[in-house]
Amino acid sequence: QHPLVWITGPCVIESADLVMRIAETLRGVADRLNVPMIFKASFDKANRTSGKSFRGPGLQEGLKVLQTVKQQFGFAVTSDLHEVHQVEPAAEVLDLLQIPAFLARQTDLVLAAAATGKAVNVKKGQFMAPWDMKNVIAKMTEANNDKILLTERGTTFGYGMLVNDMRAIPWMQELGAPVVFDATHSVQMPGGLGDRTGGYRAMVPYLAKAATAVGCDGIFLETHPNPDVALSDGPNMIPLAELPALIETCLRIRAAIEPTSERIG
Amino acid sequence: QHPLVWITGPCVIESADLVMRIAETLRGVADRLNVPMIFKASFDKANRTSGKSFRGPGLQEGLKVLQTVKQQFGFAVTSDLHEVHQVEPAAEVLDLLQIPAFLARQTDLVLAAAATGKAVNVKKGQFMAPWDMKNVIAKMTEANNDKILLTERGTTFGYGMLVNDMRAIPWMQELGAPVVFDATHSVQMPGGLGDRTGGYRAMVPYLAKAATAVGCDGIFLETHPNPDVALSDGPNMIPLAELPALIETCLRIRAAIEPTSERIG
Amino acid sequence: QHPLVWITGPCVIESADLVMRIAETLRGVADRLNVPMIFKASFDKANRTSGKSFRGPGLQEGLKVLQTVKQQFGFAVTSDLHEVHQVEPAAEVLDLLQIPAFLARQTDLVLAAAATGKAVNVKKGQFMAPWDMKNVIAKMTEANNDKILLTERGTTFGYGMLVNDMRAIPWMQELGAPVVFDATHSVQMPGGLGDRTGGYRAMVPYLAKAATAVGCDGIFLETHPNPDVALSDGPNMIPLAELPALIETCLRIRAAIEPTSERIG
Amino acid sequence: QHPLVWITGPCVIESADLVMRIAETLRGVADRLNVPMIFKASFDKANRTSGKSFRGPGLQEGLKVLQTVKQQFGFAVTSDLHEVHQVEPAAEVLDLLQIPAFLARQTDLVLAAAATGKAVNVKKGQFMAPWDMKNVIAKMTEANNDKILLTERGTTFGYGMLVNDMRAIPWMQELGAPVVFDATHSVQMPGGLGDRTGGYRAMVPYLAKAATAVGCDGIFLETHPNPDVALSDGPNMIPLAELPALIETCLRIRAAIEPTSERIG
Repeated sequence: QHPLVWITGPCVIESADLVMRIAETLRGVADRLNVPMIFKASFDKANRTSGKSFRGPGLQEGLKVLQTVKQQFGFAVTSDLHEVHQVEPAAEVLDLLQIPAFLARQTDLVLAAAATGKAVNVKKGQFMAPWDMKNVIAKMTEANNDKILLTERGTTFGYGMLVNDMRAIPWMQELGAPVVFDATHSVQMPGGLGDRTGGYRAMVPYLAKAATAVGCDGIFLETHPNPDVALSDGPNMIPLAELPALIETCLRIRAAIEPTSERIG
Repeated sequence: QHPLVWITGPCVIESADLVMRIAETLRGVADRLNVPMIFKASFDKANRTSGKSFRGPGLQEGLKVLQTVKQQFGFAVTSDLHEVHQVEPAAEVLDLLQIPAFLARQTDLVLAAAATGKAVNVKKGQFMAPWDMKNVIAKMTEANNDKILLTERGTTFGYGMLVNDMRAIPWMQELGAPVVFDATHSVQMPGGLGDRTGGYRAMVPYLAKAATAVGCDGIFLETHPNPDVALSDGPNMIPLAELPALIETCLRIRAAIEPTSERIG
Repeated sequence: QHPLVWITGPCVIESADLVMRIAETLRGVADRLNVPMIFKASFDKANRTSGKSFRGPGLQEGLKVLQTVKQQFGFAVTSDLHEVHQVEPAAEVLDLLQIPAFLARQTDLVLAAAATGKAVNVKKGQFMAPWDMKNVIAKMTEANNDKILLTERGTTFGYGMLVNDMRAIPWMQELGAPVVFDATHSVQMPGGLGDRTGGYRAMVPYLAKAATAVGCDGIFLETHPNPDVALSDGPNMIPLAELPALIETCLRIRAAIEPTSERIG
Repeated sequence: QHPLVWITGPCVIESADLVMRIAETLRGVADRLNVPMIFKASFDKANRTSGKSFRGPGLQEGLKVLQTVKQQFGFAVTSDLHEVHQVEPAAEVLDLLQIPAFLARQTDLVLAAAATGKAVNVKKGQFMAPWDMKNVIAKMTEANNDKILLTERGTTFGYGMLVNDMRAIPWMQELGAPVVFDATHSVQMPGGLGDRTGGYRAMVPYLAKAATAVGCDGIFLETHPNPDVALSDGPNMIPLAELPALIETCLRIRAAIEPTSERIG
């Protein structure tokens, strides 16, 4: 069994300086706990609830920051793409291309990402069943790219609430792809603060532990030195200082399931 | 009270010839029943379940066909846009720009559509509450465009099923925009046929009648001479021959609610 | 097509006096509008959110009040039953036995109600699909009672919210039973006020009109002279004074659909 | 931290003989793994989907069987109650009274169970939010009984499907009661087999492991020597022979979370 992969970093690139400080801390955590870690930060939050919210530095500036993170700290880096024209420039820097959940069914975006030959992480749309992701995998395969990750980040559950069906993890693994669990976006309350998305930050560790026990291949988790002042997704990010303890617990859970981890059948 | 508006046509432009035949029939229906009608057909189905499905003729060819419909039959025309670069060329032909439900939160697409000064019809995302659409209206308003329509087309309801909360119609009208009810996409079963979307075609008239009784401002409804052989959305389109009777029933319902139509208070 | 039936009255028997005054008003409304009307009031609210809430006068006292309503105003009367031992005494007074939604799957209660030979109105559980009600019908049929009504009163939709799938009406009619639409319980927000159930009273007319347009066989609707001071379900009952206008609108909608009302097929 | 409690046994008492054989096996498992175990079997399945399904031996016969299990194997025993009159006789034998999810809001049943002074396990209704259970606790408290357990067994999620929100476990623990996770009923597909409830048996271990990682206080799990021939809930029970391995994995997970188990704060 491969080790649990961590995809982590701040929601958005607030500034080059802040990103570097977070990356430095994460480098230390990854080395000390000996875990594979991919650094994530968005260059553009293209689907904020409100048009007035902070969006980030944009593609060019953002990629420069991620390039620096990569060189300086040796992280593989990932970020999310929203339109086809962003894919090629992004693929020159990113090691893993992320397709946002809302866009999981945009065929051109998936095909363009696949065509780069890079690994692609497609988040399951909040409006999709786990088994619907087989069609996304098929689109990737048609483009001759089998380096696909799927991410569970919650399913629409009434108004203003998401729910994680933990069965989505083995159901999507059965489709033949590794499955990442996104512990921070899963606790969002879409539109829950009127013109912003709310969130249940205190629930993040519970969900990360549950997903690990179920056997997910990686955990996606956004973090910030001080989430309460973060420019995006503050209500659901976890404080950077609390990350190491959570990783350690998940590593113990991972070890606990190793001898007997079941697959369906 | 303004008359009920009909936005109708085939799901996708299968061929110029078929589109012209449908438009001709619809012109006759609109004239005979004296209803305002906007012609809709997609030039590109950019988010099909499967990458192998028919997508349409593409932007340039599709816009030519819609331009001909416009000139030959005097219809206002509408179609759906998926990326920012499509907006400007499309706005030269289209009278109403449609933002698909999956993309309702893509800020750049909404802003680009708003910037054309054309009317914009944003479908409520399957993952959004009715009141979340106020943020989409705010994005439009910030771009100095108040010609916005909102469309109810169902909300995610468990796996592979949508549900229409009919209260979404008055709730969204309260936000200050006319509300269209999409009667055919609402009966989709996403992914219900494995690599295709299924649907409950027989339910379309029930939902159209319910939405009319609730006081919606328009009905969106895809139609085809023979849905069973249609290249997209066959399971939920209604036969062209059955459209006039449904319009007539809805007109009677519209008249029935006129004297007393309530608003929330 | 039979006329639309109205099942209406206060949520609970607050006092004999109040019930008689409501019944008198409703008698006048039914006569003036020439609609079939069944009087409903509960003798015991056995499943209140909080144990401290008002429950009603109990079985014996409550049945006496309903018996008086019956004799004095000529209404058929209905009320809801919660345990098997209540069925026999209740059936001596009630013309229609109501099985609450939470109890729709309690086999003994359904069988006991069926065994009385009286008509039985089973509300679809908030946790059931419309087609699941075929098993309830089967239980009734096994007890040799085919006088069954089914009622749509909403389905669980995330936390603290119900949604009405209007398709439930034709789907349940297809099972062979008349279908009533409960317009007031459908707008409940279960637990929405902490220790009480909230509700969107303003939405009641929209839903009643939608259900009528869909072709339901009856409307269930709780009413009170002053819902804001009612001892149960105030947030979702409608003021008695507003009932006649709503009935009139629904009668016009009913007439509007009559010539073309579709059935599935 | 107390040890994880196991509530397990067959869904229904098919025969005294079978129950004794299962109890004997479970006794061995509990002793070997040194886990606290409560034996569960229903004397009457009062809410089967179909009226023709096997229901069990009834109250009197069933209690005799459970009494024998208790005496012969030293188990505390539990079973589910459906009407008030069953509570007193049942409390003479049962150590833990179970209130079914459908009946979680039946005030009289909860009060009657509370009045016995026995411990009461109330399953969260499929139609309830986790925080709604505070009202059930309040009803217990008003009856001067604080020996309450709450059980998560899934929430209605569209038609024919339940979903477990793993956050329900800490949310209900915050109400002050220990929380049990029901791993077998959670994978039910209500009505999924037409006149029977289907289920995803293969998902049971995943959910049990997730709930353990989240920190639940106990696991409820129905088991049978050969679920495929079981007279009730076969599609979701797990084979008796597979139970020990699952318990062992959960014990390792329990140990893994112990040093750092978070509470909301």
